[in-house]
Amino acid sequence: MLIYVDTPFQQAQKDQLKTGAPEDEFVFKDELDSKEEQKNTLLKADIVLGNPRPAEWLTEAKNLKWMQLYSAGFEYYRGIEISAPVTNLQDFFSQPCAETMVAGIMALYRGMDFFGVLKEKKKWVGHTQRSELQLLMNRKVIILGWGTIGKRVGKILSGFSCETKIYARSAQEASIRTPGELENEIGWADIIIGCLPGTAETKGLFTSSMIRKMKKTALFCNVGRGNLVADESVLIEALNTNAIGGAVLDVTAEEPIPEDHPLWDCPNTILSQHSGGGNANEYYGIAEFFLKNLQKLKNKEPLENIVDFARGY
Amino acid sequence: MLIYVDTPFQQAQKDQLKTGAPEDEFVFKDELDSKEEQKNTLLKADIVLGNPRPAEWLTEAKNLKWMQLYSAGFEYYRGIEISAPVTNLQDFFSQPCAETMVAGIMALYRGMDFFGVLKEKKKWVGHTQRSELQLLMNRKVIILGWGTIGKRVGKILSGFSCETKIYARSAQEASIRTPGELENEIGWADIIIGCLPGTAETKGLFTSSMIRKMKKTALFCNVGRGNLVADESVLIEALNTNAIGGAVLDVTAEEPIPEDHPLWDCPNTILSQHSGGGNANEYYGIAEFFLKNLQKLKNKEPLENIVDFARGY
Repeated sequence: MLIYVDTPFQQAQKDQLKTGAPEDEFVFKDELDSKEEQKNTLLKADIVLGNPRPAEWLTEAKNLKWMQLYSAGFEYYRGIEISAPVTNLQDFFSQPCAETMVAGIMALYRGMDFFGVLKEKKKWVGHTQRSELQLLMNRKVIILGWGTIGKRVGKILSGFSCETKIYARSAQEASIRTPGELENEIGWADIIIGCLPGTAETKGLFTSSMIRKMKKTALFCNVGRGNLVADESVLIEALNTNAIGGAVLDVTAEEPIPEDHPLWDCPNTILSQHSGGGNANEYYGIAEFFLKNLQKLKNKEPLENIVDFARGY
Repeated sequence: MLIYVDTPFQQAQKDQLKTGAPEDEFVFKDELDSKEEQKNTLLKADIVLGNPRPAEWLTEAKNLKWMQLYSAGFEYYRGIEISAPVTNLQDFFSQPCAETMVAGIMALYRGMDFFGVLKEKKKWVGHTQRSELQLLMNRKVIILGWGTIGKRVGKILSGFSCETKIYARSAQEASIRTPGELENEIGWADIIIGCLPGTAETKGLFTSSMIRKMKKTALFCNVGRGNLVADESVLIEALNTNAIGGAVLDVTAEEPIPEDHPLWDCPNTILSQHSGGGNANEYYGIAEFFLKNLQKLKNKEPLENIVDFARGY
């Protein structure tokens, strides 16, 4: 089969694919000379591995039997008519995302961002910093979303004996089911962690009114989609006036964050630059996952992680 | 009773003490005008709350019924003849210390120190950083010491499904019991976390030979005493040559770390400046613990956390 690969792989992953499926033909986007060649290959391909742009090309790919995205999100392809099942990397980024959220929270609580800057300056402050530090143990946490990321966050927080409440429309574990119920619970939380995918329902879910109901010491954290926050300027204002305790933002309304953006100056704020899903073995793992799903396709078994465009995750 | 207080309390804690024990007389060191007045008060005191210096004064405090330190460590008073039981804050700093260790490890793995510096510079790097990030999940960890800090570290790591081996002379949970056995296990570990008190046995326990046996990617972390490391210059060399993956050091041979010390320039290193035991409610908690122990003294019940100078912890 002809497999068109539009994923920023290194040679190691290219070799991994060829060794893993020697009977198939892999064509890598970055080895093609022109946009036209790329399109022509895509239109002939049996399988696509990656997130090709523009999405519209896919409507003409009539030979396509399967498309494996190398992301968890797939909003970009919504509304595009694709004549084949599309799979994503749903659970693949969950543990990295969950760890980035907890790393950010602990960085704020234990002063790690601050000590990193002091190390650059070779400056010792020592004991005076101790009274600024906080503990994660026994904190009250609202987890927004009980998908794979939310569950990983919950598992990690169990090691800190945190008390958690889950917001989800349908998950059995959730005790908060509607935006109205969520707003009523905001004042209870020390930490709110957004782990929701980008859907019509989650866009703007975290309203300015909710930000205003947060405890003065509470942290807002977000690793889902930046547009979860209805009005980011209200969040920025709350941070700048110490109306809330801080924020850990892997995703923001605008990415990359421009140099003159007010978020850079917000105190008690971690900006992890949409790196949350990352890990050193990421591309190795993507290639490995693809090869497993490829074997399922060949065996006519159900593919893993088929996306449901209507449901949105 | 006359209680001499040599602990850097704010007015809030002073009020807390006076309200908690209205029948006793508290004299605070920082409210006395001269060193002589301080000494005279100490010599008359029934109880000392804090860590008075010089230690030698205590040999003359013949009225003393009890001394409550505001630290976990008590090496400074070793060899001093004190005619009363001495209690410390043994478990009080365990959770903060454990959280600082894990916060430091996660900061390195998830790039938090790096993102903190980037935020200062208002610089976006985004996706390029993803392949540098690591996961704590499933890591192999050696915990040195199974006292209160080590146990808290172990509990936190359970949320990350880490595999742990414990080094301790006598604890039942320990699978590594001697320095020789420890050296044999070093190569197994992704992370080594020193949570040992300062005793004759732990001084220099982590030898240069152990540093040389560490995995190229492994982290060395230390929240006990800086002198656990036999030769810090070997650790610094290992960090600078990327012979090991990194370090999280709450304690170091020299503290404060002088401005021209080579540790400041070590890559992949978190220096948390002996803040590990700190938390915002620390002094409130110290006063509360003292009042509880004071009640026990009055009720002739056994005091909590009596230190054993011979054992060393």
